[in-house]
Amino acid sequence: MKYHIGLDVGGMSVKGGIIDVKGTLYAKKVIETEALNRTDEFIGDMAELILDLVKIAKVKKEDVRSVGLGIPGTVNGKEGIVTYACNIGFRNVPLAEILSKKTGIPVYLSNDANCAALGEVQYGSGKGYRDAIMVTLGTGVGSGIILDGAIYEGRLGAGAEAGHMTIRAGGEICGCGRRGCFEAYSSASALIRDTKRAIEENPDSEMKTVAERDGKVSGKTAFEAYKQGDAAAKRLIEGYVENLGIGLVNLVNLFRPEIILLGGGISNEGKYFTDMVERYVNENAYGGASNPYVVVRKAALGNDAGLFGAAALGLGK
Amino acid sequence: MKYHIGLDVGGMSVKGGIIDVKGTLYAKKVIETEALNRTDEFIGDMAELILDLVKIAKVKKEDVRSVGLGIPGTVNGKEGIVTYACNIGFRNVPLAEILSKKTGIPVYLSNDANCAALGEVQYGSGKGYRDAIMVTLGTGVGSGIILDGAIYEGRLGAGAEAGHMTIRAGGEICGCGRRGCFEAYSSASALIRDTKRAIEENPDSEMKTVAERDGKVSGKTAFEAYKQGDAAAKRLIEGYVENLGIGLVNLVNLFRPEIILLGGGISNEGKYFTDMVERYVNENAYGGASNPYVVVRKAALGNDAGLFGAAALGLGK
Repeated sequence: MKYHIGLDVGGMSVKGGIIDVKGTLYAKKVIETEALNRTDEFIGDMAELILDLVKIAKVKKEDVRSVGLGIPGTVNGKEGIVTYACNIGFRNVPLAEILSKKTGIPVYLSNDANCAALGEVQYGSGKGYRDAIMVTLGTGVGSGIILDGAIYEGRLGAGAEAGHMTIRAGGEICGCGRRGCFEAYSSASALIRDTKRAIEENPDSEMKTVAERDGKVSGKTAFEAYKQGDAAAKRLIEGYVENLGIGLVNLVNLFRPEIILLGGGISNEGKYFTDMVERYVNENAYGGASNPYVVVRKAALGNDAGLFGAAALGLGK
Repeated sequence: MKYHIGLDVGGMSVKGGIIDVKGTLYAKKVIETEALNRTDEFIGDMAELILDLVKIAKVKKEDVRSVGLGIPGTVNGKEGIVTYACNIGFRNVPLAEILSKKTGIPVYLSNDANCAALGEVQYGSGKGYRDAIMVTLGTGVGSGIILDGAIYEGRLGAGAEAGHMTIRAGGEICGCGRRGCFEAYSSASALIRDTKRAIEENPDSEMKTVAERDGKVSGKTAFEAYKQGDAAAKRLIEGYVENLGIGLVNLVNLFRPEIILLGGGISNEGKYFTDMVERYVNENAYGGASNPYVVVRKAALGNDAGLFGAAALGLGK
């Protein structure tokens, strides 16, 4: 049996898992470790985690074919270099080579959103599809692009940043400093911002009741009021779906994936929501019905998508 | 010596050329022929043109390694099928196979904008670059994407339609029926529309003088007044460069090409114009200076880019 290890790397913790080619999970471990200002120690902690996983899973190290890492930042996967990842304080670190020397196992890197997309295509909602785009609707909007079964990361790993596509020039301010980004309209944070505004403008809306009951406005507030038939929530959700759809149509017009996978908290709304998005995308994509249909589906692996995808980086290598 | 034939296919005429691998042109011929409602005859005319070029160039047919066609529509290059091309009335035509049987030479197809991009990368302004995007600013906005030296056409050839990326949702109406497309702001037609509006609003502008002298408003009107220091023209051109830049930044954030090539009438403004665009793109692309620099340059081959690129489809095959 051959095994693959995947690490989902964050600034405060690293989650690791060991799987076989079918995606069976043999061991999983999370370590708390600080990355900033202690790069060497942080890399040492990751090497230890890798070797720990081998032990916990009780497999032979020579049967572990690869280690894959999902990195929160810009990665040159071809060269195995973390170009720039501010959350872990890495700049031009040849991490694949360093970790490979420390562990004796070949190491592959990619961006964490790319890994999540690969994980879904290998083991989740995108199974069986070769061309897929995964968009994660969380604090920001993450995107991973799979072309013909492999991660597409742009030249030198500096592409695939769909969240910062301008869809409404001059519009809402984005975390990146520019205005009108896809992320500034489609993230959970954007929906919460817009829900607060809508409550302000429509004090009689059900959204206010829901928010008061929950003690806060969340990404679910407007959806719940929408399902209750609230008019202001309907306008808000339809606008949200339109903005999300506009960004996705832009991606469809460029890549024409077979399937779009939606992840992050908002995607938990489930099928009625992904159906609304799927309708918008297919009605508005260039060429209409004369071009191939695009499926929109909720991602399946949740927070483990990145781990599975990282492990899958070494498949077939 | 090995030769490659390229055909640039239009609804009313087909332009053909025969080149060697270095791009030396041995013969060129344009035929007037109607495509609509006479598909078989049209294909026959193309076959005749191909065999004519072999004769005119006085080369042996067995030394002609390939014929490439640039098609105005959606093409599945892998299968050699014209999926949908309304200008020539083709829908699901296995053109590569048909023409190959008629001529005895292997035939390859791609979209015409993709061919133009490949032509520039092989023989024009993009020579030496492996990752390039060409954007043609004409009546519409055409786009061709070259990744690692090869045309990227999206799955089943139904991608790479950058002109219909939304950059200002709800904005100007586009020929495709939607609003706010890149094309609706960056085409020569869009600039002419905006120049007319600006003249209306600023009757004292130099733009009016230029237009009256020329007897019409063209894509050059505002640029000429801008160079004369006209304030309204300055606002207009800066806005045009911003909109063009926004669309290009979207593409950079996804693909991170080494170079962007601008074609079409507007690109004739030359270096001061491409420099303005280059500055905007690099100041606004995601990751700023920590990501690789993107060069913006005027395309070199003009109306022959498509022909050279079509011929280049068969290189290395």
